[in-house]
Amino acid sequence: MKSIASRQNPWFKRVHDAVREHAEEIVIEGPKAVGDAIAAGWTPIAVIRAQGAEGGGKEIVFSDELFRAVSDTRTSQGVLALFRRPQNADVFAKNGIVVALDGVQDPGNVGTIVRLAAAFDAAGVVLLPGCADAYSPKAIRASAGAILSVPIAAVSHLDAPGRPLFYADSHGETIAPPKNAVLVLGSEGSGVSEEIRRHGRAIGIATSGRVESLNVAAAAAILLWQAFR
Amino acid sequence: MKSIASRQNPWFKRVHDAVREHAEEIVIEGPKAVGDAIAAGWTPIAVIRAQGAEGGGKEIVFSDELFRAVSDTRTSQGVLALFRRPQNADVFAKNGIVVALDGVQDPGNVGTIVRLAAAFDAAGVVLLPGCADAYSPKAIRASAGAILSVPIAAVSHLDAPGRPLFYADSHGETIAPPKNAVLVLGSEGSGVSEEIRRHGRAIGIATSGRVESLNVAAAAAILLWQAFR
Repeated sequence: MKSIASRQNPWFKRVHDAVREHAEEIVIEGPKAVGDAIAAGWTPIAVIRAQGAEGGGKEIVFSDELFRAVSDTRTSQGVLALFRRPQNADVFAKNGIVVALDGVQDPGNVGTIVRLAAAFDAAGVVLLPGCADAYSPKAIRASAGAILSVPIAAVSHLDAPGRPLFYADSHGETIAPPKNAVLVLGSEGSGVSEEIRRHGRAIGIATSGRVESLNVAAAAAILLWQAFR
Repeated sequence: MKSIASRQNPWFKRVHDAVREHAEEIVIEGPKAVGDAIAAGWTPIAVIRAQGAEGGGKEIVFSDELFRAVSDTRTSQGVLALFRRPQNADVFAKNGIVVALDGVQDPGNVGTIVRLAAAFDAAGVVLLPGCADAYSPKAIRASAGAILSVPIAAVSHLDAPGRPLFYADSHGETIAPPKNAVLVLGSEGSGVSEEIRRHGRAIGIATSGRVESLNVAAAAAILLWQAFR
């Protein structure tokens, strides 16, 4: 057990970088989420506990101040772990709808959509440019553990041979997307890119017309559920 | 035009209280949202601008530091207004499903569900104890303007004579809620209260089983859309 109270300590810096940058390494918070990650075959680089949190002998202990600087109190419950960031997965390999996000900037929405992808057996989630990272602490939290089981890939360009391309649009046809589709969801402000509009088919959700649009995760919920059931 | 740079100024204190407490007065951010509120018949107590933001002659101008202390930069775009908090509405008076929230603590979820209530023509939203306030700045933001048109009531006890009572539960029947129902959505951790379980009928959403539950706003999206279409 190592006890760390200095911001200059290399372990603190490494965890802090993973929280902010989530480039090569990422952080998972909370005893259950860390346990689920290990059960799913992920190997922790380090398990970190807040001072006073119960634990085995091998963890690194951060002072309360350091621990607070890198974690969300409610989610972490005094425990977090550092992992290697998963590599881009082949999201097109599995059966099921592929969800592609285009310019979805809010990490809570990205994480909620990862959770929906698991709930409704999507093949995976593709992140096009302008999206929040699915491995930020906030997105991981919103995924409620689904980050461990949903294939995710960040790509610069959408290429999905053999799958029909659909995109969500408030003026689209109100049909259910087929199970082998790629379904693109854009930002609430500007929708999907011109290129996707040219090649895809617009799919909509009937509403009262009293709102201009739905929240992107709410739209994903309704469309993915329709494809799944 | 009054220019204000002191935290001791009564206008700053009043706006700051409205942002934090949203008890008697509330804050709406952004030129479009403020304009929509005025168009909907709400009368601003005061319109506040950040120093340098364009405006007419009647507004109060806050220094950048003060303005930042009471607003979300992206949403406000340098403009906010103080309004009287709307009184509890009669959410049972209109046709359409009534959404009741039980212990939904996240203001983003509460606001997103208000937005869904508008999108799918619900009669209104009832907030049972333990819910985030629908008039906090974060909930208002998440409602995307729907806070202006959706009847909302905070109550200590759910009493809905003449309407069938349903509650969302992952083990419930996978049926669409009827349009005259009261649909109760609970917190993701603990669900709805024992009393509602005793008197209501459980309604579920078919999923893959790969997640323990759906985000409460995602569940609301699917159930309200089913009741609406």
